[in-house]
Parts: sequence; C-alpha cells; structure tokens
Amino acid sequence: MHDKRIIGVIGASSADDNVLNDAEIVGRLLAEQGVVLICGGLGGVMEAAAKGAKTAGGITIGILPEASRHHANPFIDIPIATGFGEGRNIIIVRSADVIIATNGEYGTLSEIAFALKNGKPVIGLNTWDIKGVLKATSPAHAVALALAYL
Amino acid sequence: MHDKRIIGVIGASSADDNVLNDAEIVGRLLAEQGVVLICGGLGGVMEAAAKGAKTAGGITIGILPEASRHHANPFIDIPIATGFGEGRNIIIVRSADVIIATNGEYGTLSEIAFALKNGKPVIGLNTWDIKGVLKATSPAHAVALALAYL
Amino acid sequence: MHDKRIIGVIGASSADDNVLNDAEIVGRLLAEQGVVLICGGLGGVMEAAAKGAKTAGGITIGILPEASRHHANPFIDIPIATGFGEGRNIIIVRSADVIIATNGEYGTLSEIAFALKNGKPVIGLNTWDIKGVLKATSPAHAVALALAYL
Amino acid sequence: MHDKRIIGVIGASSADDNVLNDAEIVGRLLAEQGVVLICGGLGGVMEAAAKGAKTAGGITIGILPEASRHHANPFIDIPIATGFGEGRNIIIVRSADVIIATNGEYGTLSEIAFALKNGKPVIGLNTWDIKGVLKATSPAHAVALALAYL
Repeated sequence: MHDKRIIGVIGASSADDNVLNDAEIVGRLLAEQGVVLICGGLGGVMEAAAKGAKTAGGITIGILPEASRHHANPFIDIPIATGFGEGRNIIIVRSADVIIATNGEYGTLSEIAFALKNGKPVIGLNTWDIKGVLKATSPAHAVALALAYL
Repeated sequence: MHDKRIIGVIGASSADDNVLNDAEIVGRLLAEQGVVLICGGLGGVMEAAAKGAKTAGGITIGILPEASRHHANPFIDIPIATGFGEGRNIIIVRSADVIIATNGEYGTLSEIAFALKNGKPVIGLNTWDIKGVLKATSPAHAVALALAYL
Repeated sequence: MHDKRIIGVIGASSADDNVLNDAEIVGRLLAEQGVVLICGGLGGVMEAAAKGAKTAGGITIGILPEASRHHANPFIDIPIATGFGEGRNIIIVRSADVIIATNGEYGTLSEIAFALKNGKPVIGLNTWDIKGVLKATSPAHAVALALAYL
Repeated sequence: MHDKRIIGVIGASSADDNVLNDAEIVGRLLAEQGVVLICGGLGGVMEAAAKGAKTAGGITIGILPEASRHHANPFIDIPIATGFGEGRNIIIVRSADVIIATNGEYGTLSEIAFALKNGKPVIGLNTWDIKGVLKATSPAHAVALALAYL
C-alpha cells in the first residue's frame, strides 16, 4: 500500500448539493483507480468525497483540526487527530501527491496556496481562480487531470 | 506593553526595490504609532519591514519556520523558532490584530487566506486580488487603513 | 475501518536487536488482533513495529517529522508528512487510543508525557520509569495490557 | 535586543504558594540580568515568573496554546497565539537558550524531554528527576546555573 498514490480533495465544510455531488463523484472515481483519498476529515466536501471513495471500496484519510479523532465523518478510515486547528491544512497538502480543489472558501484557498508553494499540482473544479491552478470542467475531468500527474 | 496592538506585515522573502522600500515605510510608520510589528522573521519584505520599524524605535517579532532562532534577520527583536516550516504562517496571523500584505507569492496568499478565514482585516498593497482584501494605494494609506481597525 | 482501534508504538530511531525484536513482536500481535498501528514512521523501533504489523497483514500509519512522505520506512501503509519535526509527536499521541512505549530516548519521553497529560493509557516495556506508566514484562504482556483498554 | 538571551521558565498552570514564589523570584532575577523570559503565557508558574520579570522591568514572551492572544496572563508583553494546543510546548523550547523547570506536571515533562532532545540545557528546581536535568537548590541557584550557559 506504501506505493499507492495519495490525492487530496479539499473544499468547504458546507456546500450546496451540486458541489457535494461533484465531490462524491471525484471520490468515487479516485477510489476506482486505486488512489488513496486524503482530506480534512470533517463535513461538506470532505464527507462527500470520502463517501464516494468508500462506495468504490477506497481508503480514506482524514486530517482533523481537533485533538480527538471522534470528530471524523463516518466515511473516514484513518482519522488523524492533530489538534492544530487550521494548521492541519498544510499536513493535507504535504501528504498528497496532487490536490483537487472543489469550490471552497478561505480555508480551501489556504490549501491551494500551500500546495502551489510546495510545487504540488492543483486541479480546480469551480474553485478560486488562482494562477497555477489547472481548471477542470467536470469531476471526471478533474480526476483525469490529477491522475495524469501520478 | 501587553496592551499594545500587533500588526502583521507579510510578503515574499525576495522582492524588488520598490516593494522593499514600501515595506520599510510601512514598518516605520507602524512603529511611529507605537504598534508592535510581527512578521515571518526572514529576508525580503520581512526584513525591510522590520528594518523600518527599528528605524523608528519599534518592537519587532519574527515567527520563524526554522527550529533555531539564529535564522532571524538582524532587525528582529523577538525571534520565535517554531520548526513548523510554513506551518508557522498561521501563527503570524493568529497573533496579529490586522494584516498588511505587500506584494507576495503563494506563501503570502496562504496567510491572506488564513487571516480572512479567521476574520482578521487584511490590507493589501499591490498584492493578491482576493475578495475581502482592502486595497491600499500607498504605504501610508495601508498603515492608515490598518490603524483604523485597532 | 473507522471503528478500528488505533494503538501507538513509540521508541527510538535506533535501538539494539533485543529492543527491535520486542517491537516487531508487539507490532505483529497488535495486527493479529485487528488493531491499526500508528508510529513515527521512521527507523528503529518504528520500523520494527511496522514490519511486525505487516507480517500479520495489519495496517500501519507513520506520522513523519519531514515535509515529504518519502522518508517513511518501507512498512508504512499510510505516510503522513507533517513537516513539523518533533512537533509531530503530539499527533501520534492524539490519534492513538493507547500508547505502547518500548525503550526510547528523550523523544519517546516527550510522547509518554503528552499521552499521560491527555489521559491516554501508556504501557511501558523497558522504557522510562514515569509515574502513570503501566509496566509490562514482555511484548505479549504489553499488548495484552493495551488491548484491555480498548 | 536581538542579541539578548532568552531563557524559558516552565511549570504547571496551577501550583502551591512555595512554587509560585520560587517562580516569581526566578523571573525577577532573570530580568535583573537583562534576560528575556519566554514561557507558556498562562497561569500558575507561567504567570508568577512573568510577574517577577515585570517587577524588574524585564521583557516577557508567552507562547499560548490558544488561537487568540487574549488568553495571555497580564504580565506577558509579547503574546504569541499558536492555536496548536500543547503542540506549542516545543516552540517554547526551540526559542529558548536554556530552560528552567520549576515543579510541573506532565506538560512540563514534555518540555524537559524536548529540550534535552534538542540539546538545550535544563535546570531543574523541585521538578522531574530525569537524567540530564541539572538540579538547583534554590531560585538563585537555578538562575546562576542557567546564566552560566549563556
């Protein structure tokens, strides 16, 4: 499993149904390719992506802001309790090979920034328009672009 | 001194002369108003702002990525050695009342994002065009806007 | 997998053969009970415990000090790259239900201290003699004591 | 001020009067020697040491677990809001030249361990009996031993 690739899916802890549906598809498609999913472990986009990954039998990691792993959403296999609050965002980025950003607010922006700073590819799906982010037009397109980097 | 206000000045570790000159003016003007300066403690904008603050007899704090405080630029009074790499960016934001962003690359963008996420006012001087950042037209304007929040 | 219990095995990055052998047995016995192993992801006790767990088909998590996951030992399934140096020690403790300390130097002592501070049970196998650490007399004894807390 | 030496004083957030009195004397004696005091910024030993330092006109830094600097005790000049919980302990150690440990519980033990791991001298005043800690018999003795390392 050590050789498996890890892709981070980032996005807000609350989002509308279209965004959540996209995130779930992204999670499922990644798992179907044998990719491990890493995310922030909480609700919204994080939960939808993890749910999609579990549908396809994938493995999901949640890097939590809290000091207790019981804050993880029910689709997280490996909950990591950091206790560093949003300081945990950089751990998601550092642990992933590629980042897929779906929608998102300022927390997501901080992760996009950290990823680009660290030279990690960032695929954007209706997210912040930041130079260096590769725009995808659909969940399947986002996953295809991400897989091309592995 | 506990009652003093702390303003964060953020920006890249290398920048052209105009940017550095602006940062130095920002640092000097803040110190003249009795504000404590907090920054990332390294070179470029961080050093220029700290140099400006020391010119006016101000107090400067540097939150360093490294585990040793000897990486601080020579204008830092209080070097804090975190050893958390860019994970230290969030500490700068959390410790400041207001953030002034001058120019900057992805690291600066992560700090802007963290600040806005945490409800801290961000004044921008030729920096990232992100919703929520208040644009200033000069160093003096940036400082005036920042002081208005204290 | 979310319901699985996670046990942390801590110890030094270099150790003599007896200690490494003990750590490997601990890892194997934990995996045989379906427990997920979390450790610091590097060499010595961390590698021996992870090797033992993989022998028995277990799952292993490594919380790395480095910012790149390529520093993980070859028996780590889930490498988490924190970039926080020894600051990552507290993440191991926070993510585990119980800690088993085998031998160890000052880094291990910091983890024992964090665990006890956070009310996590600590089982000690030839490690620091600190009040609150439950002494085990063999790897099997250590695992039995740890499992009793789950 | 950059050339000033920084000494960390660590100990529990609640302690009896003798311990608090000792911590206050340590803080005062350090400040009289022009040393900057760094501590965890909260109550108990941290507050007593900072109070002592301010009595003698010293400078005090508090590295807070919380994400807001308003948790600092009233004798802290420079409050640093980390939001990292006890993860901030390592920042205190990394930023100090020498550590003086007075009494203390498990949190203090984690700091002693981190300090020794990082090769920082640790002076102990009625604290944990750990190999490598230099025992002092009084606050004045502790300060004299600490100053000898600067």
